[in-house]
Amino acid sequence: MTNTERAKVAIIGASGYTGEELVRLLLRHPHADLVAVTSRQLAGQPLAEVYPRTGHHPAAKTLRFTDSSAGEIAESAQVVFLALPHGVAVEFAEPLLAAGARVIDLSADFRIKNAETYREFYGHEHRAPALLREAVYGLPEIYSQTIRAARLVASPGCYPTSILLPLIPLLREKLIDPWSIIANSLSGVSGAGRKAEIDYLFTECNESVRPYGVPKHRHLAEIEQELSIAAERALQIQFTPHLVPITRGILTTLYLTPTRSGSEAGRIEAALSAAYSESPFVRLLGRKNLPDTKNVAGSNFIEIAVRHDPRTGRVIIMSAEDNLLKGAGGQAVQCFNLMCGYEETAGLL
Amino acid sequence: MTNTERAKVAIIGASGYTGEELVRLLLRHPHADLVAVTSRQLAGQPLAEVYPRTGHHPAAKTLRFTDSSAGEIAESAQVVFLALPHGVAVEFAEPLLAAGARVIDLSADFRIKNAETYREFYGHEHRAPALLREAVYGLPEIYSQTIRAARLVASPGCYPTSILLPLIPLLREKLIDPWSIIANSLSGVSGAGRKAEIDYLFTECNESVRPYGVPKHRHLAEIEQELSIAAERALQIQFTPHLVPITRGILTTLYLTPTRSGSEAGRIEAALSAAYSESPFVRLLGRKNLPDTKNVAGSNFIEIAVRHDPRTGRVIIMSAEDNLLKGAGGQAVQCFNLMCGYEETAGLL
Amino acid sequence: MTNTERAKVAIIGASGYTGEELVRLLLRHPHADLVAVTSRQLAGQPLAEVYPRTGHHPAAKTLRFTDSSAGEIAESAQVVFLALPHGVAVEFAEPLLAAGARVIDLSADFRIKNAETYREFYGHEHRAPALLREAVYGLPEIYSQTIRAARLVASPGCYPTSILLPLIPLLREKLIDPWSIIANSLSGVSGAGRKAEIDYLFTECNESVRPYGVPKHRHLAEIEQELSIAAERALQIQFTPHLVPITRGILTTLYLTPTRSGSEAGRIEAALSAAYSESPFVRLLGRKNLPDTKNVAGSNFIEIAVRHDPRTGRVIIMSAEDNLLKGAGGQAVQCFNLMCGYEETAGLL
Amino acid sequence: MTNTERAKVAIIGASGYTGEELVRLLLRHPHADLVAVTSRQLAGQPLAEVYPRTGHHPAAKTLRFTDSSAGEIAESAQVVFLALPHGVAVEFAEPLLAAGARVIDLSADFRIKNAETYREFYGHEHRAPALLREAVYGLPEIYSQTIRAARLVASPGCYPTSILLPLIPLLREKLIDPWSIIANSLSGVSGAGRKAEIDYLFTECNESVRPYGVPKHRHLAEIEQELSIAAERALQIQFTPHLVPITRGILTTLYLTPTRSGSEAGRIEAALSAAYSESPFVRLLGRKNLPDTKNVAGSNFIEIAVRHDPRTGRVIIMSAEDNLLKGAGGQAVQCFNLMCGYEETAGLL
Repeated sequence: MTNTERAKVAIIGASGYTGEELVRLLLRHPHADLVAVTSRQLAGQPLAEVYPRTGHHPAAKTLRFTDSSAGEIAESAQVVFLALPHGVAVEFAEPLLAAGARVIDLSADFRIKNAETYREFYGHEHRAPALLREAVYGLPEIYSQTIRAARLVASPGCYPTSILLPLIPLLREKLIDPWSIIANSLSGVSGAGRKAEIDYLFTECNESVRPYGVPKHRHLAEIEQELSIAAERALQIQFTPHLVPITRGILTTLYLTPTRSGSEAGRIEAALSAAYSESPFVRLLGRKNLPDTKNVAGSNFIEIAVRHDPRTGRVIIMSAEDNLLKGAGGQAVQCFNLMCGYEETAGLL
Repeated sequence: MTNTERAKVAIIGASGYTGEELVRLLLRHPHADLVAVTSRQLAGQPLAEVYPRTGHHPAAKTLRFTDSSAGEIAESAQVVFLALPHGVAVEFAEPLLAAGARVIDLSADFRIKNAETYREFYGHEHRAPALLREAVYGLPEIYSQTIRAARLVASPGCYPTSILLPLIPLLREKLIDPWSIIANSLSGVSGAGRKAEIDYLFTECNESVRPYGVPKHRHLAEIEQELSIAAERALQIQFTPHLVPITRGILTTLYLTPTRSGSEAGRIEAALSAAYSESPFVRLLGRKNLPDTKNVAGSNFIEIAVRHDPRTGRVIIMSAEDNLLKGAGGQAVQCFNLMCGYEETAGLL
Repeated sequence: MTNTERAKVAIIGASGYTGEELVRLLLRHPHADLVAVTSRQLAGQPLAEVYPRTGHHPAAKTLRFTDSSAGEIAESAQVVFLALPHGVAVEFAEPLLAAGARVIDLSADFRIKNAETYREFYGHEHRAPALLREAVYGLPEIYSQTIRAARLVASPGCYPTSILLPLIPLLREKLIDPWSIIANSLSGVSGAGRKAEIDYLFTECNESVRPYGVPKHRHLAEIEQELSIAAERALQIQFTPHLVPITRGILTTLYLTPTRSGSEAGRIEAALSAAYSESPFVRLLGRKNLPDTKNVAGSNFIEIAVRHDPRTGRVIIMSAEDNLLKGAGGQAVQCFNLMCGYEETAGLL
Repeated sequence: MTNTERAKVAIIGASGYTGEELVRLLLRHPHADLVAVTSRQLAGQPLAEVYPRTGHHPAAKTLRFTDSSAGEIAESAQVVFLALPHGVAVEFAEPLLAAGARVIDLSADFRIKNAETYREFYGHEHRAPALLREAVYGLPEIYSQTIRAARLVASPGCYPTSILLPLIPLLREKLIDPWSIIANSLSGVSGAGRKAEIDYLFTECNESVRPYGVPKHRHLAEIEQELSIAAERALQIQFTPHLVPITRGILTTLYLTPTRSGSEAGRIEAALSAAYSESPFVRLLGRKNLPDTKNVAGSNFIEIAVRHDPRTGRVIIMSAEDNLLKGAGGQAVQCFNLMCGYEETAGLL
């Protein structure tokens, strides 16, 4: 039975693109009351002024950004979203949890279960290794039961979501060789955040397509962790991110070696269908269509298509999602829905 | 008779988009030897590394950015291009001229003849009012004779060029009411320079069309100065700049009231044809085509078309240019060609 | 008191961008049941396949495009939206109305009250001049009372909406000179429809900004009709449309001469505030912000800002809207809400 | 010793984007006289009107498109470029060669050596299998000697160039496993040609990133032919093309398994350096930079960078080129230069 009681929610660090999406999603959420939104640099300004698109919500006119502490937030909010940079989120999560709030963190601070892996990829010791063990990886299609009960959810990154959802069911069913995985990902520029850097100027991104971070990207840590869990063995993948001149969207093309030959595409499609038959935001495309970022932009859906190449024996899987929604804010709200017992799609259609 | 002796040239402050264009144009110029390129932040790096597009020029591999003083530059270069921010150019121009170099300044520092107007629009006293009087406004289609002899050329801005070239012949011929001028301009994002500011991020400019700086833009000072000279009376115009999601290009749409009725478009086209019959970079379009930024991008051309609206009696003139070439670096090289007695088109086709 | 009874609705000719928006809006509308969607070329296909974005609506999986006649549609639907080309809509409107349906037409077929003006701008006789007189111009902010009672609503075009909403209150109050109006409009490419024409290829529109249809555009007929009604006298305006490389959005910059001097901007802002105080989709910006298409894309809002130029005495008004929503499908649904007695914002926030 | 005699050249079928590039390149070529340009649909129009960018070349004002036959062309031109659709080029090549002209074909008609492979990929018998055997594959970095002497050159496609240049030296040196090759390619929309199709409208491509033609693309035939020659054994590769919203450019990311471990990147970079030390248009990037389409757009260069991933043992090679220049018209002119004994870079810098 779905819950319909309203929840008081807050967003800490809402000055970036993900924060803006959260503000928009939570303002219009049927069961959420947005009680606080913080940002040091925007403190004092009403939401409606900073984010004109929210201007029609009555709350956006009265609610102002504050510079409140974790303690103050925890007094008024039951669920708190952290849209903070890596390394800063952990400082807020501890006192919020201690004060009884439930926390959904959109940074990478709690995505890695192993403190050593964290240090390897992020270059410093984790401040709260106990929380690392407690945190639930917030991929609702995979971990819905643990998310429901979680105090602390680590909402996955945009690249990982586009790679994990197509692959986890296949690794669980041993349908693909775990060491054969190559992920070629194309990301819209909003993935770089609202940061004043030359590299992300219009003039530098327009008419430009370019790889970056080759060969070792930080997101590999959480991707390989989750794939290894699914495969029940350690694995490493090839992952190359590219920047493409669109605002929103990630398109990932996966190259895989199937473990058995004969009707590979059918077997893989069947595994995905079975895994996601109850998942409202996974859209499996059939034989006619291929994923396209413009078909998911502005939504919480992920599109997935499978093709088999009989010439090479490989399977190619392609996925498309909106990096700010299914890859960030939308996914976090989907977790919020599960945590509160709401319809999984509440506020997201 | 055209000169064919080579000239030694230098660029001071070549870290921005205009500086990059100058580097490219002067490297491939048939009569120029680029002997020095300065930039505090890039000092020590070879041109080819900073600007990969220049990599095939032998000079780009050996020539490195320096942090040389005006004095050092003047020892080796006969003509010096200043691609510096407003207010900084003047500090270099004085010692360069004193040391015998000729200077082409791409900033606004020497475009205004009247020191009081300069203060009104730029908010501070001009440091070298005598040079202000000496400087020649570098619009080759209008001032070719004085440019040829000039020691100091103030190369016009991108908006002014797109407005002045269509209007000056009409004001000289008294064909339009000088107080009726409305200029609606659309600029590509490179016009904002290579500056790390949130407003010019891809994510802020893509899928965005927006006016800015309404109603008083700094470029008005030089626009109205030059139009008033042509009209032989003071005038003021309406000018609204907009930012559009293209890298290069300015499109200006001008709304004018003709002074006489009856065959307005024909009379105006005739005046433009007469004025620019010897101008290699002015492309007057006839009745079939309208200007389009993509037809001038990457070139030093300006496209101009004239239409008369018999319903309202107004004349509409539209122009398109590449803001970094005809609106900046290309125009400066065109001045350089005149100053040195080269073909006006040398290195620009 | 707002109505909450559900209405059965149909869309005729839903293969273009506007049709797609209507499908999306009506599928998620809280009070509408979409019972039929027609398209000759798409007949037989389920909505979800043609428009992947609608795939999650249960109705999109079962409802298929048909090639039904007006008579068949009128049997099942109470309100019918026509998303047909100019000249075709009139053929459907007559039998639908005769069969008792109410009709919202998104073409230009019923926007012109005067059959002679229609012939002047569209080049042929109107087929149903009696309906021309009956039809209500569907601008909800101006004609809400007559729209509520209308059998036939002519939903305005995208350019007209962006020009009429800022100007009508000012002409009614005699605040601006009716013959001074210059409208410079920039349109996203979706305004050209889903048509296979070279001019609208990515390669022709990208990095391109260009005027078109200078000086006489068909939309002038309805713009001048509505402005003349507001001004209580015939008037003509200057209107120049331009194509800019964005998918959605229109930005219009208006140049006006105020009738009285002294606090022009304040007086004009006050008139707009008074006129639109009850209009949920008009967002008047204050002195700090200017309209930006990206702030209204995907929404039914129009942003309007006013500036006075003390140098020239002119007033500049800028507006931004989504051409497919406030400029087409959203506005039609807003009319539908009024016609059925629903909340004006139902299904549109 | 380089030749400096002028050559008379013609272009057959110059109405597409590649034809336009050829017109532009040959008009400004120091040793070429463009004597004829044909297009059925454009016959009678001067070049300057159809392609405004060429307007300043005196020849563009006088030269008009014609609908001449191969025989007529062969009377005036020594070298003829065919910019025709696949299947049509062969009809012109035969009579041109018979009449003594040399031919550079930019279609796929002569790229495949094996008539059976041609039928497999293009679905019909080849009309002139003898010419198929004679034709030289026009990749100047690989086949410069045979190109010099060729009567008939088959200029490679854009995808093949971006894949072949990085791989051929490595396969020749047995540095990579020939069956491990995965090529993930991103193409700008101009690659689809100037065709009025819905799929290539601005509205369909903007904010869109999508794969297509998975898993078997026609270009595979020539790619695998040339790679197999280099490897001295038959091989098949994985190739996935994607469409990205830029006008020009191809970025290819290659995933490879090296045959030996230990300093893989160094060994591969060394092989590329050795292979291309005399190739003026191959720009090997070092360890600091990665390819970017904007750095090659508008030029005939290809950028290549190599990275080794010690975690997976794979080598990743990335290349960027302008699909209309190094991937089409520029490459054809490069062949022309070799065929005539000109500097390889003549007219291309």
